Amino acid sequence: MDITFSTDPKLSLLLPFIYFAWQDDVLTKTEFDALSNFINTQEWLTKAEKTFLKSKINFDVPPSRLELFHWKEKIDSTLKSTTNINNLTELGFLIANAERPTFTEDEINKTGPVFAQLEAGLGLMGSEVIAGFRKTTTTLTHSQNTVESFNVQKMTALLDGSQAEIINKVKALIGSEAFKLDIPTDVTEYREKVLHWCQILADNDLSSYAYPVAQGGKNDIEGYFAIMETLSYHDLSLVIKFGVQFGLWGMSILSLGTEKHYKKYLKDVGTLALPGCFAMTETHHGSNVKGIHTTATYNHKDRTFTINTPEKYDRKEYIGNAANHGEMATVFAKLIIDGKDYGVNAFITPIRNKDKSAYHGVVIEDCGHKMGLNGVDNGIITFKNVIIPYENMLDRFASVSESGEFQSPIPSDNRRFFTMLGTLVGGRIGIPRSALAAAKTGLATTIKYSDKRRQFGPEGGQEVPILNYRMHQLRLMPYLANSYALTFALQHLTKRFVNRKEEEMQEIEALAAGLKAYSTWNARNTLQECREACGGKGYLSENRIDNLKNDTEIYTTFEGDNTVLMQLTAKNRLSEYRKQFSGMSVSTIFNYVVGQAKTVVAEKNPFATRNVDETHLKDAAFHLNAFQYREREIVSSGARRFKKLVDDGLDAFDAANIMHPHMLQIADSYLDRAVLEQFQIKIQETEDEPLKEVLTRLYNLFALNKIEQHKAWYLEQGYMEGVKTKAIRKLVSQLCWEIRQDAVPLADAFNIPESCLGVIATTKIAQA
Amino acid sequence: MDITFSTDPKLSLLLPFIYFAWQDDVLTKTEFDALSNFINTQEWLTKAEKTFLKSKINFDVPPSRLELFHWKEKIDSTLKSTTNINNLTELGFLIANAERPTFTEDEINKTGPVFAQLEAGLGLMGSEVIAGFRKTTTTLTHSQNTVESFNVQKMTALLDGSQAEIINKVKALIGSEAFKLDIPTDVTEYREKVLHWCQILADNDLSSYAYPVAQGGKNDIEGYFAIMETLSYHDLSLVIKFGVQFGLWGMSILSLGTEKHYKKYLKDVGTLALPGCFAMTETHHGSNVKGIHTTATYNHKDRTFTINTPEKYDRKEYIGNAANHGEMATVFAKLIIDGKDYGVNAFITPIRNKDKSAYHGVVIEDCGHKMGLNGVDNGIITFKNVIIPYENMLDRFASVSESGEFQSPIPSDNRRFFTMLGTLVGGRIGIPRSALAAAKTGLATTIKYSDKRRQFGPEGGQEVPILNYRMHQLRLMPYLANSYALTFALQHLTKRFVNRKEEEMQEIEALAAGLKAYSTWNARNTLQECREACGGKGYLSENRIDNLKNDTEIYTTFEGDNTVLMQLTAKNRLSEYRKQFSGMSVSTIFNYVVGQAKTVVAEKNPFATRNVDETHLKDAAFHLNAFQYREREIVSSGARRFKKLVDDGLDAFDAANIMHPHMLQIADSYLDRAVLEQFQIKIQETEDEPLKEVLTRLYNLFALNKIEQHKAWYLEQGYMEGVKTKAIRKLVSQLCWEIRQDAVPLADAFNIPESCLGVIATTKIAQA
Repeated sequence: MDITFSTDPKLSLLLPFIYFAWQDDVLTKTEFDALSNFINTQEWLTKAEKTFLKSKINFDVPPSRLELFHWKEKIDSTLKSTTNINNLTELGFLIANAERPTFTEDEINKTGPVFAQLEAGLGLMGSEVIAGFRKTTTTLTHSQNTVESFNVQKMTALLDGSQAEIINKVKALIGSEAFKLDIPTDVTEYREKVLHWCQILADNDLSSYAYPVAQGGKNDIEGYFAIMETLSYHDLSLVIKFGVQFGLWGMSILSLGTEKHYKKYLKDVGTLALPGCFAMTETHHGSNVKGIHTTATYNHKDRTFTINTPEKYDRKEYIGNAANHGEMATVFAKLIIDGKDYGVNAFITPIRNKDKSAYHGVVIEDCGHKMGLNGVDNGIITFKNVIIPYENMLDRFASVSESGEFQSPIPSDNRRFFTMLGTLVGGRIGIPRSALAAAKTGLATTIKYSDKRRQFGPEGGQEVPILNYRMHQLRLMPYLANSYALTFALQHLTKRFVNRKEEEMQEIEALAAGLKAYSTWNARNTLQECREACGGKGYLSENRIDNLKNDTEIYTTFEGDNTVLMQLTAKNRLSEYRKQFSGMSVSTIFNYVVGQAKTVVAEKNPFATRNVDETHLKDAAFHLNAFQYREREIVSSGARRFKKLVDDGLDAFDAANIMHPHMLQIADSYLDRAVLEQFQIKIQETEDEPLKEVLTRLYNLFALNKIEQHKAWYLEQGYMEGVKTKAIRKLVSQLCWEIRQDAVPLADAFNIPESCLGVIATTKIAQA
Repeated sequence: MDITFSTDPKLSLLLPFIYFAWQDDVLTKTEFDALSNFINTQEWLTKAEKTFLKSKINFDVPPSRLELFHWKEKIDSTLKSTTNINNLTELGFLIANAERPTFTEDEINKTGPVFAQLEAGLGLMGSEVIAGFRKTTTTLTHSQNTVESFNVQKMTALLDGSQAEIINKVKALIGSEAFKLDIPTDVTEYREKVLHWCQILADNDLSSYAYPVAQGGKNDIEGYFAIMETLSYHDLSLVIKFGVQFGLWGMSILSLGTEKHYKKYLKDVGTLALPGCFAMTETHHGSNVKGIHTTATYNHKDRTFTINTPEKYDRKEYIGNAANHGEMATVFAKLIIDGKDYGVNAFITPIRNKDKSAYHGVVIEDCGHKMGLNGVDNGIITFKNVIIPYENMLDRFASVSESGEFQSPIPSDNRRFFTMLGTLVGGRIGIPRSALAAAKTGLATTIKYSDKRRQFGPEGGQEVPILNYRMHQLRLMPYLANSYALTFALQHLTKRFVNRKEEEMQEIEALAAGLKAYSTWNARNTLQECREACGGKGYLSENRIDNLKNDTEIYTTFEGDNTVLMQLTAKNRLSEYRKQFSGMSVSTIFNYVVGQAKTVVAEKNPFATRNVDETHLKDAAFHLNAFQYREREIVSSGARRFKKLVDDGLDAFDAANIMHPHMLQIADSYLDRAVLEQFQIKIQETEDEPLKEVLTRLYNLFALNKIEQHKAWYLEQGYMEGVKTKAIRKLVSQLCWEIRQDAVPLADAFNIPESCLGVIATTKIAQA
């Protein structure tokens, strides 16, 4: 009779090893050598048995598919019989004994170690292999699902705050049939559609919220920002066209002009009867707008200004509303009186006639196809000595007197220019809020899809929703936390701007510039992660991540290039830092320095730097300390470093060049701290317990994730040791795991109109 | 007579302070208080003088613009007279003395300290303010420019290596008029254009390089990859269409079929007479392709297979060439014989008739508009019991015998499937090489533009090319270094694949999977940075970053989702790690462990962890040690951690879930090391001194930038201390500064056809 595993049960001892060697791999040389040596050296095997076993590890005659099936069945039924198996040897004994009890306790004790050596020789981790063999259908990974721990409507109310009414009005409109998101690939068609949408918004009294009541407005700038943000769940070309017409064009008149301009223009701007542009950027001067070359030459004889483009690349470029629809523009130009340059001022200049033909002396070109926002008609404008009347100068901050002399309450050209820009800081509030809404739309789509989409699972078990994978949670949950954090921070910025006092203006400008960069970069990162997390589905236009991503891509550039804006913010922080000391006497400074040193000593004591207690790691005071410490250290080391570079004889411009990366860190650490504080305040204000709890989880994730991102810096400083940064990493992962259960409700709380979400978010996907 | 600065020169002492207070800012409360207190307490001033000075710091009557001009002139001329001025006080004395010498040495010595206090009170850093006042036209920042330190043609030859001939042939073609990059927004038009381009490539014998000579090919797979990479400077829809037709479709026949299939199909595939598809992915199974549901049921009566889509979402989705042009497809389906499932196999199945109508039983839909690659016609295919003849089974790895029984040299379904996939690993070489070419096109465009584009400069000085800004260099130079590093690494991978031995296959697959993820993520990051670094110009389609970015966006998903591929690579590394120990005796393992420990001790000694010597930091041995240490530690801690999780009773699937982020690190550290090694080898092989030098600079940047990116980990491990990581950061910045001079020649060495670069790269921009 031939030898088989069944007829010679003790051979089954080797069955798990042989199965393992073949199972998902071809038999490797190492495996062959280990098994074959083992078989050769076993005295308890007969020659025939050895021959049989070696026939089962023959490269040229692998076991048949059915034989493998059969072996697997034996392994499975044995594993089912007991959970107490730790390695392949034990498994082998049990299979052998199940066939026919052949081994005594004594034999097992004697043979065991020999097999253990084989196991080691094969490089097997016994318990892992056994775990891999087991078919599992109910794992922790499977059991995760959506559990709503709080009331979604209450969360929406908390997020919308005082603006709920106008937000709901806008949502109803963009969710309606007229706003169906069916984006034409044809650029001309797209632009007309967007113009039409703007008209509907104007007809619904949503365009002139920020204007004076006398001009049909509501004098409600907070409402204007809420509208712009809410519109951003919908098409972003619409948002930018809306922002150019009613924001930039209208607000430049409101901020830089005076009553006569309001009366003459604002009503028509608000109804869209007078489409216009904001013409600042030139081909050669984008970031450095102070350096623009367009001139407005005053002619005292007839009291006119001549607007002119001196050289080709001094043309106005990238001007929204210019290529097709704009009829007038606020043009920024250097005012020249009697050959003297009085710096940049603003002038209302016609660019098109009512029949849409170009105004005499104006040449308009189309910027051409763009990466996104193709529903916005960006154009290039060249002025060939266009003459405009005296009253077209926007004269709030500077004017030309009756006698033809320049007059202004702000003597420095620089300062006047920045004061003018400052009044236009609204754009740096609208854009980050718009970016946040786009990020939320992408996140909601991705989270809702990931909760349904199943892929992979344990051998033989059900596939698992991809949102149950730790990696997927780590990719998305921190952005969900960021989106909540930024909601509160941007509302805070808006309120500060609306209620601003003159002396706070510089700080608010710095905060707005910084948060514009912070929020638009966050949107860029969020949408990138969403695109990848949705896989191929994230690449289909019907799921909107496509347009959301490409449209907001330019947000990091326009309204101030992010890198440049961060420098502005940092400059303000450095200057504030220096001023802190200016009013102080020597003894005050001494006490201040001693105080700081004490804090640092307290923060850097070995207990604190190694404290991995969860209560400590989740303590808001610890977070605030860590954020403040980073902010303070980076700004003060920045000040010292700059001074040293200059003291060492470097030109200030060269020193500033070297400092750029440091400056970015100054701004970033300031913004992190500012955003953290607002999140803390919002939680303190929240009374509903379930809301407070879930917000606290999000808050902890936000705070710890930021610390984790900057851990290299904290380690370099000795503010934390490795043991603590590792504990923080673990806690971040744990928080992601916990928040996953509430992820869908947290996305639902954004209350984004269903029509604005990707198709994958709303289609019920059948179980695979 | 009225008091003025000119009539009462000693008052000029205060002029710099007053000017400073007004210059670019409104006078602040702090400044007013400090100045006003100072003035009040100076005994050397008369009441009238005090009144005059205080009139110059009156909020309501700011100095006129002309007055500010005048003050500035005085400051400027004084600064011009000497370089030895350290603070505003010294400046004040010099201005005062220039008007009329009024102060003796003694007076200066007495008054100096009082002013120093004022200076402190204003929070001024004297030297910085003075430096800010100086008009500088020649700074270090200005003086940087393009200097070609090496021969560009020689570098191109080095990069192209043995494939130079075919690369130049392809470049000539894609640079020709027929390939003018004029991308239609209309999808149908675009698809036809791309098909037409593919036809030209086929007509020029560029399509079947990898096929056997008998089928019109050259049996030259290395050439095929060089073609695909070079095409990627041009439109990427063309590349993907080319890859689907001649790569996926053709290579699936070549790899999975046998001689009879080659004879029947390959020639027509190569000439594009037979357009076809690679139909693997299903709606419900993208990453987990092993789980597909499409069936191929064998019918022994007539020896046919019936291809069927059981449920709606079992349809084949995202299939390139399917929506418009494909006539046949390699369909992956579970082979069913007598009701038994024999795992996934591949079958040639018609999907369209020659007249392009759908084949009987086949339903084809269009995937719709995508984020990019709209020149590729992706489609959805549903099979309704389509019957195909017996010989259409691609039978290299499995077949049905004459008697109707399943037969295969590879018994395990799993293993057979992965062997089949393994033969298709070519896609995971072509895609990362294509991604690299796209990244290079974006980089070359951005670097050449940044070398010309000027923005900002010191007050009154010339504006500076933006590539001279440290921040801009830090954003771009590391990606330039990466692009060189990856060129060598991917050429190495290609050669390993072409010359592979069976036993290396798993390792090569793991390397290809990993480098596919590594290179496509690098392209994503590079192009993102390029888009932002080019500002608004980077958003215009004419500059190509738009399409390069959107087209390669899906590279991180297709041919295997990057996150999943990194897990594959990591699994291979873990398994290799375990096998290392399998052949060892206990004493060998002991010696190995002792040896490792010694290395670690040597690496972690305080001298090494704090060594900031530049020679050390630029030492290739230091880099290799650091990279290997990271790789070894992460893989061994991964093995330990996984074992511990399972030993603690966690299900293997749950343990794997927790391990995902760690697995990514395993793969990443392995890939970093593999790429570093190839860069080191290439430099060793380079004999031309100037080439060697510039490559060494790029290499150092690559190595140190990677260490900088992972410094948190090194600090946590105690492998480096803060003083060393800080020195590395500084050196990275210094290397970027040095490489800037060669940046344009380094980009030129890619030798990308001018027509494939963005317009901003090739237009001469006039000086602003």
